Amino acid sequence: MIYEKYDSVRLSDDGNAVVIIDQTLLPNELKYLRLERAEDMYEAIKFLRVRGAPAIGIFAGYAMYVLAKQINADSAEDFYFRLDRIGKYLSSSRPTAVNLSWAVRRQTDRAGSAGYENAVEALRAESVKIHEEDIATCYEISQKCLSLLHNGDGVLTHCNAGALATSRLGTGLGPLLLGAQTGYAFHAYVDETRPLLQGARLTAYELKNAGVDVNLICDNMAAHFMSKGAINAVLVGCDRVAANGDTANKIGTYGAAVLAKHFGIPFYVCCPFSTIDVNCASGADIVVEERGGDEITDLHFAKRVAPEGVTCRNPSFDVTPSELVTAMITERGIFRYPYDFSKI
Amino acid sequence: MIYEKYDSVRLSDDGNAVVIIDQTLLPNELKYLRLERAEDMYEAIKFLRVRGAPAIGIFAGYAMYVLAKQINADSAEDFYFRLDRIGKYLSSSRPTAVNLSWAVRRQTDRAGSAGYENAVEALRAESVKIHEEDIATCYEISQKCLSLLHNGDGVLTHCNAGALATSRLGTGLGPLLLGAQTGYAFHAYVDETRPLLQGARLTAYELKNAGVDVNLICDNMAAHFMSKGAINAVLVGCDRVAANGDTANKIGTYGAAVLAKHFGIPFYVCCPFSTIDVNCASGADIVVEERGGDEITDLHFAKRVAPEGVTCRNPSFDVTPSELVTAMITERGIFRYPYDFSKI
Repeated sequence: MIYEKYDSVRLSDDGNAVVIIDQTLLPNELKYLRLERAEDMYEAIKFLRVRGAPAIGIFAGYAMYVLAKQINADSAEDFYFRLDRIGKYLSSSRPTAVNLSWAVRRQTDRAGSAGYENAVEALRAESVKIHEEDIATCYEISQKCLSLLHNGDGVLTHCNAGALATSRLGTGLGPLLLGAQTGYAFHAYVDETRPLLQGARLTAYELKNAGVDVNLICDNMAAHFMSKGAINAVLVGCDRVAANGDTANKIGTYGAAVLAKHFGIPFYVCCPFSTIDVNCASGADIVVEERGGDEITDLHFAKRVAPEGVTCRNPSFDVTPSELVTAMITERGIFRYPYDFSKI
Repeated sequence: MIYEKYDSVRLSDDGNAVVIIDQTLLPNELKYLRLERAEDMYEAIKFLRVRGAPAIGIFAGYAMYVLAKQINADSAEDFYFRLDRIGKYLSSSRPTAVNLSWAVRRQTDRAGSAGYENAVEALRAESVKIHEEDIATCYEISQKCLSLLHNGDGVLTHCNAGALATSRLGTGLGPLLLGAQTGYAFHAYVDETRPLLQGARLTAYELKNAGVDVNLICDNMAAHFMSKGAINAVLVGCDRVAANGDTANKIGTYGAAVLAKHFGIPFYVCCPFSTIDVNCASGADIVVEERGGDEITDLHFAKRVAPEGVTCRNPSFDVTPSELVTAMITERGIFRYPYDFSKI
């Protein structure tokens, strides 16, 4: 059994459903959803009940298996036609989520290579494999990064790169979660991460449940605590790394990296090696998505706090230049500046 | 007549009340309150309907005049006894507000020196003088700082140091407001300023009303926009300056100053000369107030967004080392690093 209590995605014990934590209800409520119908799975992705690139990939792997079992096919051709249609339907729930279409394609390919008689069992095995690979990757990253930290360190985190977004340990939070299991006493300083508050809602929740000492702060307080010597390292995940090491991650990462450099604090990026896009030469090639201003003005959709009609700028990501990244920790090893992934 | 439409504090036309903008309702509602009774004035200060150190001082000056007129005294002794009691009552509404007790003392002193027969008229004249002095100070600061900016500049602001907190132009916002009146086209990047959102609620409101191009951003987005060349200067007010130039201001100021240095952008502090505390040698002597975590976890008291029981750190201010302050702009002139106010 590869599952643990707080796994954000797993297969139900009877194998007939995907079970997820509804992340939209956290931290106020921990609710598991049992999803059997394609429509409910589509909705769960679209409305971010399951979020985080690796978690969505794991979810799609299991979903393809569960839905394949429900197919009443007249023939092999009919089965593959219907499986393909299911895959396209799931993929359309969040078109920009690379891991979603990647996992769907991996499953349709696997079903094809296994042959009609063995397809469903092959999909089951492959879904578990996708999940286990992510667990192994997160573990390798966490262990390697943990070797760079010291017991008692104060560690600043930004956004959420923990179990909810991935499997088990996560990437950026992995060293803290693994450390908590192996006797390290870290002091986490958790950026709330405006505008969508993934730090306050998810990271604080995960670290607190793991028994880590959590200090939730507003994003603008990091410099103050760095100046007081409370922070010994900064840990973040990332969305995409260019061949030269420039790193796209949640908005606010760049600022945290500049502060870390000013105060002489190491700044570590934790990510699966697959996050490195060798076809992207530098950060200049990364387009930053800009979202609606209501995420800023309407305080998590609870209350209006800015003048009507005010112009907002709301980039979701920023690109941290590689010279500010002390080390990049992947399952294949620890890389240090200057980076050149184009030759790997 | 010294008043303008958006003055946060003024004397009523009949001289029988202090009229304020209820700042707790901004930006959703612009409501003026006419305060005649001591109890209502006390409540307005205590619940931050009037806020900002200079604005509170101006308010207290007018309040002392309005309430002095209501005294039915048997004798000079009785009058001064009652006036003193009114002053103590008002001062107790926000014991840590230095400008409040300063203005009350200035008024009781003035009433005393004027003599019983002339006391009420002296209080009226003195209250106007307090207000006019602040207007003049803000104007001098704004004009001097404006000379450091260029038409078309992108300017980052943090917290609120505008008309609502002072009179007319404000300090940190003064150059932008004065510039708007004199043909400058600035692009303001307004930090929302978590946790209490003075930037989103008040600064965006003031600048938008003044016709300045406003871009409201989350505090963690400043580095991104600096890296894109969108910001040419950072302007802030301050709460207290040490003799060596170390500057206490709203939490987040220190981080903005570090970012400005990294990107080679000038960082300007605008403040009345009286803000410089020569008895305070350096920032190490400034105690930073830390407030309750619910300001972070409960999103402006609208919605819970962090796990129950999570530990928060919530320093209200930080202290920016003087070497990060490019220039300090006061009504007495522009000072540049290194600062030594102990000899002035």
